Amino acid sequence: MKTTLKDVAQRAGVSPATVSYVLNGKRTISESTRQRVMDAVRELDYVPDLNARGLSMRDSKLIGVVVPQTEPGDRLMFQNSFYSEVLGSIEYYARQEGYHILISATDANESYLTLAKQRNLDGIIVIGMYPSDFYRQMKKTQIPIVLVDSYCNDYYYHNVRIDDAYGSYLATQYLLRCGHRSIAFFVGQMCENGVMKKRLVGYQRALEEFSVDYREEYVFEGQIDYENGVLLSRKLLDSGLPATAVVAAADILAIGAMKGFYEAGVKIPEDISIIGFDDLEISQYLTPGLTTVRQQISLKGQKAVELLLRHIAEPNLTKQEVILPLQLIERGSVRKL
Amino acid sequence: MKTTLKDVAQRAGVSPATVSYVLNGKRTISESTRQRVMDAVRELDYVPDLNARGLSMRDSKLIGVVVPQTEPGDRLMFQNSFYSEVLGSIEYYARQEGYHILISATDANESYLTLAKQRNLDGIIVIGMYPSDFYRQMKKTQIPIVLVDSYCNDYYYHNVRIDDAYGSYLATQYLLRCGHRSIAFFVGQMCENGVMKKRLVGYQRALEEFSVDYREEYVFEGQIDYENGVLLSRKLLDSGLPATAVVAAADILAIGAMKGFYEAGVKIPEDISIIGFDDLEISQYLTPGLTTVRQQISLKGQKAVELLLRHIAEPNLTKQEVILPLQLIERGSVRKL
Repeated sequence: MKTTLKDVAQRAGVSPATVSYVLNGKRTISESTRQRVMDAVRELDYVPDLNARGLSMRDSKLIGVVVPQTEPGDRLMFQNSFYSEVLGSIEYYARQEGYHILISATDANESYLTLAKQRNLDGIIVIGMYPSDFYRQMKKTQIPIVLVDSYCNDYYYHNVRIDDAYGSYLATQYLLRCGHRSIAFFVGQMCENGVMKKRLVGYQRALEEFSVDYREEYVFEGQIDYENGVLLSRKLLDSGLPATAVVAAADILAIGAMKGFYEAGVKIPEDISIIGFDDLEISQYLTPGLTTVRQQISLKGQKAVELLLRHIAEPNLTKQEVILPLQLIERGSVRKL
Repeated sequence: MKTTLKDVAQRAGVSPATVSYVLNGKRTISESTRQRVMDAVRELDYVPDLNARGLSMRDSKLIGVVVPQTEPGDRLMFQNSFYSEVLGSIEYYARQEGYHILISATDANESYLTLAKQRNLDGIIVIGMYPSDFYRQMKKTQIPIVLVDSYCNDYYYHNVRIDDAYGSYLATQYLLRCGHRSIAFFVGQMCENGVMKKRLVGYQRALEEFSVDYREEYVFEGQIDYENGVLLSRKLLDSGLPATAVVAAADILAIGAMKGFYEAGVKIPEDISIIGFDDLEISQYLTPGLTTVRQQISLKGQKAVELLLRHIAEPNLTKQEVILPLQLIERGSVRKL
């Protein structure tokens, strides 16, 4: 038999409401009464039911985390370790504050609204960019939501992100300073106002600053995974373009490309230079190490949790935007010309 | 105002119990009544509260997943992408069956018992090995539990694992067949009856089969992460032992070691051969590609979910053990002598 609130109340000789007040700290209770209640809780090994709390107080201590599915039915949501690094960080910081996380690798849509209701989520962290209809729908949950890596400007949502255009600007500028002028750009699929599109803009801006013409045939677009990194490197080699360097808009693309070049007998950095974007854990352990733009992935998760919990504590909090810093990390994959 | 079960009952002109029966399918209800109830559900946009269901029926549709923390406060639970690949798979297969997963990177202990109670978990998947006291405690939850990668023999728990000793036997035998006789072993921290200890046993068994003496100084033990792979490679080089090959008990150790050897000017496979264990996604994208023992990580997650849901559906299911197959994958990191 599960111990109930009533059992505790009976043992302590108080009303069930008093037990509630003591446990949720929402009213001041005399110290002697508090002590009696807490003794009864201990004696009966009483565990408050968080699901039941969720019913009455919007206090389920549960945070939903939405991760995009790159393809329907794709179960490799973690193939890009960017996601696992962010999630690991979110889980860690949420746990420090007594929250649990419910991860869904779902194309966030109406069924997610149902989930949020069903689970009485206290808040949601949404990673990545979704169709605009999604943002219209998600507002209906009326719960705090933090977007990570989104350029959605809706006042309803908080944002935690980096300046993506500045990041690829840094990467491209570095190659230009090393003397490269014929620079290919490997990028994930671009959508208007999305992260990948911004990274293209930064690439273009740096070229312009060095008076190098932007040429569309130097841009190679694919899914963001290792395999597409390999494919894009082959496409570049097949194109016959005289590129001496590549900016990859994600480390995972750069890593695949390094493999593709290696298999084709094209050496890095002797024959072609490459720079990534993210600084995944693995990137420093490659040979050669990948020169890249570091974003503090773990800090992104931490800031998202902090902002969400702040909004949960301050329901009237207005839209906040946190832009995290970027840093160029020099390793061995870029050659000075 | 949230729509309640009572509202639906009123609209449909039936009792709340009847609405419950229709929604949970636990009793036969006449088609006309069923239709009236479902119409009311649609008209009122009623969403059953899963937390509330959890209260009464042990049917929270929530599965707990426990991932070990390698160090207290370590937030990099996902640094070893083995975990992210298993978790991605568990999330995917659970979702197909209408379950959500609650991930905890916790040293599973008494506080996890509290969590399981609080959340009314339908079942738990525990990844990795824990102190024996943990297994004594977890039984108290009285809910179905599947252990992944554990050699705990308690009848209470189902197991999904590989034959770890056989895996490292395969790896070591492969090196021996390639002519290597001086073979180092890089391994994670070993505990009695744990995965890493089993892998040592397989290494020893292969040596014995080829009449090569087992020598303890050829075994290098460290945490399972990239950094320790680098460290162990340095320790081997510093030892002055004439090893021509390394069996690494995890790909992540092998990858770190490859970097360490490269930095020391020791070439793979020309100067030293290395074979891993796991076949992580990244392993085929290294240069050279890592020869390794493949375990089907995604299948491990799938089998764990299937077994757990089977036990949830069949409460009297006795202990099941699923042993998944292993396969040697030849790439470029081993040289024939």
